[in-house]
Amino acid sequence: MTPLLPELALSDLFPFSASAGGEEGAAFESALFSLFVLFLAAKTGEEIFRRIGQPGVIGELLGGFVVGPYALGLAEVTLNAQIFAELGVVILLFVVGLEVRIDDLFAVGRMALAVGIIGFLLPILAGIVVGVVIDGDLLAATMIGLALAATSIGITSRVLAELGVLDRAFARVILGAAIVDDILALLAIGLVSGLAGGDLGVDTLLVLVAGVVFVVVGLALAPLGRRIPRAAFVWPRFADTPVVPVFIAMFAGALLAQVVGLAAIIGAFVVGLIIAETPVREEVEHGYRPLVGIFTPFFFAVTGAMIDLSALFDVRLLVLVVVLTTLAVLTKLVGGVLGSFRLGRWNSIVVGLGMSPRGEVGIVVAALGLTLTDAQGQPLLGNETYAVLLAAVILTTLLAPVMLQRAIPRARRDERHHERPASAAPA
Amino acid sequence: MTPLLPELALSDLFPFSASAGGEEGAAFESALFSLFVLFLAAKTGEEIFRRIGQPGVIGELLGGFVVGPYALGLAEVTLNAQIFAELGVVILLFVVGLEVRIDDLFAVGRMALAVGIIGFLLPILAGIVVGVVIDGDLLAATMIGLALAATSIGITSRVLAELGVLDRAFARVILGAAIVDDILALLAIGLVSGLAGGDLGVDTLLVLVAGVVFVVVGLALAPLGRRIPRAAFVWPRFADTPVVPVFIAMFAGALLAQVVGLAAIIGAFVVGLIIAETPVREEVEHGYRPLVGIFTPFFFAVTGAMIDLSALFDVRLLVLVVVLTTLAVLTKLVGGVLGSFRLGRWNSIVVGLGMSPRGEVGIVVAALGLTLTDAQGQPLLGNETYAVLLAAVILTTLLAPVMLQRAIPRARRDERHHERPASAAPA
Repeated sequence: MTPLLPELALSDLFPFSASAGGEEGAAFESALFSLFVLFLAAKTGEEIFRRIGQPGVIGELLGGFVVGPYALGLAEVTLNAQIFAELGVVILLFVVGLEVRIDDLFAVGRMALAVGIIGFLLPILAGIVVGVVIDGDLLAATMIGLALAATSIGITSRVLAELGVLDRAFARVILGAAIVDDILALLAIGLVSGLAGGDLGVDTLLVLVAGVVFVVVGLALAPLGRRIPRAAFVWPRFADTPVVPVFIAMFAGALLAQVVGLAAIIGAFVVGLIIAETPVREEVEHGYRPLVGIFTPFFFAVTGAMIDLSALFDVRLLVLVVVLTTLAVLTKLVGGVLGSFRLGRWNSIVVGLGMSPRGEVGIVVAALGLTLTDAQGQPLLGNETYAVLLAAVILTTLLAPVMLQRAIPRARRDERHHERPASAAPA
Repeated sequence: MTPLLPELALSDLFPFSASAGGEEGAAFESALFSLFVLFLAAKTGEEIFRRIGQPGVIGELLGGFVVGPYALGLAEVTLNAQIFAELGVVILLFVVGLEVRIDDLFAVGRMALAVGIIGFLLPILAGIVVGVVIDGDLLAATMIGLALAATSIGITSRVLAELGVLDRAFARVILGAAIVDDILALLAIGLVSGLAGGDLGVDTLLVLVAGVVFVVVGLALAPLGRRIPRAAFVWPRFADTPVVPVFIAMFAGALLAQVVGLAAIIGAFVVGLIIAETPVREEVEHGYRPLVGIFTPFFFAVTGAMIDLSALFDVRLLVLVVVLTTLAVLTKLVGGVLGSFRLGRWNSIVVGLGMSPRGEVGIVVAALGLTLTDAQGQPLLGNETYAVLLAAVILTTLLAPVMLQRAIPRARRDERHHERPASAAPA
């Protein structure tokens, strides 16, 4: 948990300016400095990885890791940096939504449902088995399973966008399955919180209903986007282009999703789907490019900066990390292959790999396990198990882009032998 | 200092989601929510003011005030919101720099120097006189003068951009004088900090030298921008357009200015001047439009949200606020008219009005006055004087756009009778 190198005190770098604003001024300046360092690290990492022919996103993650608190300690992951990261992934998923036509998404609906459900249940089962073997306690084992269940779609979205394959059937299955996955995660967290509160009451049910209603209404509304004229976006005097009004809509969608207990990115994605059907789609896509360029690197850099692999330095824990990471990837892979076998072998493998990065939901569940106690008053998960889960979640994030970059060209070759299987099979 | 209405608890609005991330999650969500509310309030305010024919920027400021902690209390001004605000004004001044040709700035150099110096010394003198009259203590009186000295150029820049007059001679004089003003502020804060530390040592001198060197080197380098080819901006693999590399340069310039004790916006402005000379100027201008649209409203909304006019509710203090505000505007007006009389009557009036908004430097000096003590161990400024200074600084910010919008059309009419006085008189 300690940095690999002693931290540089920021006051060493700002010898003069602290005098101008006292403590608050110093916090302000170090927050700005952290943002700059994270951004620069992400771009430098991306540049290096692109030049050696690897996915740029891994470079951004590792760039963030290098300057983050677990390595050089040049940048802090403050609440502020996390907000930039969140807006970055919100904007990313919104833009991904812009690239998807709602009819294409509906066309792969059942497949996405199957991938989402199978790929959510299998990791839970695998986690329970491992948990029971190492600990014996079923409740603790269930927490391990839940922590490995939910997909984090940010990384995969970026890889799909980087390779220009967001219009392929496998990409749409992944995005659809990610929505299903997020609703299931909502249910899972509701259950866990219910356990924490000692009851599974009306609140938990309300959350689930609200989440499902949000997604269903959002998807049902999307086709209506075709009837929205451009004038609806540029009527305000402050709007020369639709960019600012659409930004407000995206932000509102993200917050609304969060209010009903879903991930903010799901809300942004749904708003993106709706805007994609309107006549301003291309204009928005163009206007959003600078926003994607400035905000999204923060998401990857911050994710990278939070990489704490201290569990890897203990051989006993390392074994467990490797086992859980392997199971985490394999179970999603099986979910993808079983759920979307009609797409053909490599296409369904890409779906599985695309679903395999875990993220914040896994970390939240693991953290909950630290605070929840069993009947004897002991925490459900010990610090060691927490560190192991953290490492496994992080490794899925690093492995997925590497595997996707190898699998996607094969999937595209396969595709050429079929005739666009997704539209041929309106599953 | 208390909100006009009881604050809405954010947990009332997010009944479910707090369960997902505990306290940290709640802080995260309320920070996101505050950002959204500030943005929406700024845009709503701008819309209303534009429709009634008033400067949009006043609407943004008042929008921020309405949702801020001194009115509805819907949005908090967290460190995070301040970072967005700072990036907003940094981006704004960078874009303003893009609009200015360095030769045009050099052409009005002496005029800008005169406006900057006279407009900095007069408010100090006026403040000292008022301070001595109300209190008698010369050191306290000097603090009042210093708090009224420094211009904050963000508001004026926005008005000039909104009215499309950034290419006029008066605009260039204002921008040049703002640089001079910031160097003088650097000196003033250095002196004040020196007083606080009990000595005016090598550090103070170093700060001043570093600040001057930064500006001189930056301005001297700007013409070299003409020799930078487009390829210099798009060589990285991550850069399809110059936007991201230029963002890094702008951010670095802003931080560097801060390191040498200047305002971050001066650094961004100087980088803007350099980029303006390169072949990517138009491309950057175009690519930055969405960034300006998304970031700058935060600056005005946050500035508005910090409007604390509690001093206005006490008649005795109100008189003092009116006196100081009037003096603050008049002294800058005289500085503008004396320094740039060659531009003609209304043009020089616009210069004076453009220099009249005060901002963060004034607030920092006033806050320092609260913490510094005199020989008897009493704080130099009492809480009442602090509140009065705060109100006067804020009122200059609200008054300037209204007056500028009236004066600028007159200045442009005047200009048509002369033949571009600025280039005719390379003062």
